[in-house]
Amino acid sequence: MKLYDSDWAPNPRRVQCFLAEKGVTIPRIHVDLKSGAHLHADFARINPLHRVPVLELDDGAHISESVAICRYVEEIHPEPPLFGRDARERALVEMWNRRVELGLFSHVGAAFRHGHPGMAVAEQPQIKEWAEANRPKALDAMRFLDRHLDGRNWLLDDYFSIADITLLVAFDFMKAARLSCPDEYGALIAWRDRIGARPCATAR
Amino acid sequence: MKLYDSDWAPNPRRVQCFLAEKGVTIPRIHVDLKSGAHLHADFARINPLHRVPVLELDDGAHISESVAICRYVEEIHPEPPLFGRDARERALVEMWNRRVELGLFSHVGAAFRHGHPGMAVAEQPQIKEWAEANRPKALDAMRFLDRHLDGRNWLLDDYFSIADITLLVAFDFMKAARLSCPDEYGALIAWRDRIGARPCATAR
Repeated sequence: MKLYDSDWAPNPRRVQCFLAEKGVTIPRIHVDLKSGAHLHADFARINPLHRVPVLELDDGAHISESVAICRYVEEIHPEPPLFGRDARERALVEMWNRRVELGLFSHVGAAFRHGHPGMAVAEQPQIKEWAEANRPKALDAMRFLDRHLDGRNWLLDDYFSIADITLLVAFDFMKAARLSCPDEYGALIAWRDRIGARPCATAR
Repeated sequence: MKLYDSDWAPNPRRVQCFLAEKGVTIPRIHVDLKSGAHLHADFARINPLHRVPVLELDDGAHISESVAICRYVEEIHPEPPLFGRDARERALVEMWNRRVELGLFSHVGAAFRHGHPGMAVAEQPQIKEWAEANRPKALDAMRFLDRHLDGRNWLLDDYFSIADITLLVAFDFMKAARLSCPDEYGALIAWRDRIGARPCATAR
């Protein structure tokens, strides 16, 4: 098994955070996004959508999409469970993971891809107005998450899950999008301090 | 258990398609989106994000996000399995479900929300240029799916999964976005004919 991976992009980081919480290491093959290695015709065999990360299984199958890779890792390394411990909790993890993806991560990503000069070639057409429209939506998502986290350790109370990892990656990716968490969202900032002490926070 | 639901929106349809393939019925409470019933302060108790569908469990917990609801139904009604039958297949189902969501569904949704005059009040700001930018991206996704489906019955070969349900809902939602599948994508059109004979196709 090996993982096609890159240094700085948020989705590869999600998988590395997940592996760090599992205490699992998978051999990594570095794909240099800056030189466009993922766009090469040879890479289409690994992922026809030309994106990382991709997990290659020993039978040659390729699993792309970060959450699909994490789900496979959960199956082969069940402890500690990060997708929930029973039917109800697994559904709530899926719900919170998606709320963070759709509510915060997607808006931060759009603000970055459509607003950052360094993305002008990769994102065609780059629409500044769309970048700007996503900034208040990201702030709305932060307010929603701040209110939810008030009085809770993690998104699912005392249970740490992949939804917190998604939030960590989205939160830290705000810097690239020139967004930041307003001081008034104290519960969200305290959550970021708390997760900073976990194995996932330093995974790269 | 009961399901807060609406008539015409694509995400509630996803859950109904899933239930139809399971042969399961859950009592439905109709939420009238056109009169804005989901925006009412009372509805925040059910889903603070003011969206349907939402599954209410007997213990009072609320599960929103279509795929989270489907995952819960899969846990309590495992047959037939629609999220995969083993670790490898479950990862591939997650991958294909996300490829359809991110590759087609999100672009169709953006073309609709930012392009349709009927969405001008709900989608603030409505950005026509963003709607237009999503139309060729939806076409790219159709070409990718057409090539993949060539020689296959379903997205995962002979195994029918939730990823096919997501594609059905995204495909049919194209009409609302004034998009259509070009005739040259014969494998995708044949797939739509094939799924048309299944229980999910007529679920509402």
